[in-house]
Amino acid sequence: MATVTTLDSKRRKPGSDALDNLVSLVSDDLTAVNELIIARMQSPVALIPQLAGYLIASGGKRLRPVLTLAAANLCGYKGDRHKALAACVEFLHTATLLHDDVVDESDLRRGQASANAVFGNKSSVLVGDFLFARAFQVMVEDGSLDVLRILSTASAVIAEGEVLQLTTTNDTETSEEAYLEVIKAKTAELFAAACRIGAVVADRKGAEEEALRSFGMNLGIAFQLVDDVLDYSAVQARLGKNIGDDFREGKITLPVVLAFRRGDEEERGFWRRTMEEMDQQEGDLDRAIALMAKHNTLHDSVERARHYAAMARDALGLFPASPVKQALLEVLDFVVDRDY
Amino acid sequence: MATVTTLDSKRRKPGSDALDNLVSLVSDDLTAVNELIIARMQSPVALIPQLAGYLIASGGKRLRPVLTLAAANLCGYKGDRHKALAACVEFLHTATLLHDDVVDESDLRRGQASANAVFGNKSSVLVGDFLFARAFQVMVEDGSLDVLRILSTASAVIAEGEVLQLTTTNDTETSEEAYLEVIKAKTAELFAAACRIGAVVADRKGAEEEALRSFGMNLGIAFQLVDDVLDYSAVQARLGKNIGDDFREGKITLPVVLAFRRGDEEERGFWRRTMEEMDQQEGDLDRAIALMAKHNTLHDSVERARHYAAMARDALGLFPASPVKQALLEVLDFVVDRDY
Repeated sequence: MATVTTLDSKRRKPGSDALDNLVSLVSDDLTAVNELIIARMQSPVALIPQLAGYLIASGGKRLRPVLTLAAANLCGYKGDRHKALAACVEFLHTATLLHDDVVDESDLRRGQASANAVFGNKSSVLVGDFLFARAFQVMVEDGSLDVLRILSTASAVIAEGEVLQLTTTNDTETSEEAYLEVIKAKTAELFAAACRIGAVVADRKGAEEEALRSFGMNLGIAFQLVDDVLDYSAVQARLGKNIGDDFREGKITLPVVLAFRRGDEEERGFWRRTMEEMDQQEGDLDRAIALMAKHNTLHDSVERARHYAAMARDALGLFPASPVKQALLEVLDFVVDRDY
Repeated sequence: MATVTTLDSKRRKPGSDALDNLVSLVSDDLTAVNELIIARMQSPVALIPQLAGYLIASGGKRLRPVLTLAAANLCGYKGDRHKALAACVEFLHTATLLHDDVVDESDLRRGQASANAVFGNKSSVLVGDFLFARAFQVMVEDGSLDVLRILSTASAVIAEGEVLQLTTTNDTETSEEAYLEVIKAKTAELFAAACRIGAVVADRKGAEEEALRSFGMNLGIAFQLVDDVLDYSAVQARLGKNIGDDFREGKITLPVVLAFRRGDEEERGFWRRTMEEMDQQEGDLDRAIALMAKHNTLHDSVERARHYAAMARDALGLFPASPVKQALLEVLDFVVDRDY
């Protein structure tokens, strides 16, 4: 259950220890969160815990709930409320993943068959709905309208981001700004919300809540940027991970946005054929990766991520030094320095 | 926008005037609700109001928000909160419809092409998620944790009911109890919640809230029972409405549950072949309807509905006579006395 990273432990880079380190600093809380997750995903309808448990137990990093726990710790919070709310964050994330996999028609998630591939699209849609509703039930039990406001707004923004992503799919003229808008909404908003509610439970509204929101938002942007780079990564391919999913789905991410803009007319024709008309042939993914190498777009996308990571780092400036703060900063480094 | 019933006005039965009558008694409030629905489904992502508006403007009866308005009226409520909360109820209902149509692979909804048929399954899933989240945002603005508790719980129960329905699909041995459990959860729970929150905003917790919950629950059960009868109805067929959807989907509703139990072995073989093995041929729907006629199962399903309608009627007993109470009782009659 508490698997922290899916990287092969023998190949672990120094950076990934940062995530282990952060987790170890909140490990008692995280154990409680994991127990709450199991307890609260139960239902008399047996398929619900079966399907939810399949995804929740499948080795996710629990990064978002860990951020809630860490943020509460940074704010000196001594109570228990952050644990149930961290579980809510994970429920909302899991609901999104379930619906994403239906929308993307994915067969794989975290290196194993996706829930929709095993249980069917229908169950994935409905169990996602259940987890979404259950998250709000648990928030209501906590009783903070501030938390409810933050997480209901995040949920609406995430859905907007996902719809926006649908409308940019297959559009090779997507701008960097439009791409950023999508990843802010679909990914970074929940990171920001997860961090903020750590401040809310600790009653540190104002500058600290805003600092944690900014940290989460910028970390989330950096995280998604690098995730989109890894989808074309030679290192990932060597590790036996699926690469090229975004390419096959016609999902326009920054490495493509930059390659399209930096390419000549012949190259743009390639991108239009493969990602707009979805006419993909043997060898096209290799050519896509070669064009990204030619224009250095994977490297430059990581540089963009570094910029957001720097903002995230500065956002934490007003918190005094502590082991958790140090670990959060190292997680930032890990996020942008993953091999690609 | 304010179309109240989809019945052909020239064929209107006396009973359907009851619904018109109820609507006319809350028509100022309902106009405000419709404006709130339009205002709050907006998003910078244009596809969201397009798709949501397509379904919301397609002539739904607004029965659930009308129940919230009527319940608040019964409780003597004079404020404005019930309007925004009625809009939330409609958002939750619309989100459920969007996901239902994806799950059922429906092409038609309210006699026109379903949203998923026009905009695709992906958009329907994601816009459903948006409306769900938006409903909770609006509830948070209202600020009542009681309302949030009632509607988050209803949402979880509805999702459970939908998953439970998946597990009874194609199971001809489904019992009447299992069928009732499904329709209570997937349909009646939201009717009950819609009525309850009318009492909550009026600060009439206790006996009146419980009476309205019971009224909504029993009305919802009766409503779904008759809806399931109408899916096999000769009158509906004459009106040019789609019939036999449940049959084609292998959805086991009470008319089938009863026909299966009352049939002989040859007849059970027919039900197993058509609804369990889904081996359906020309003429099978006609035979299904003939078997229901032979065993009187449409009539008896409506009799069951009459039982729940009677309970709903008695639940309203403690409210003093008023035009809205009278109209609610007539709606009950309309629900069970629709031609089939």
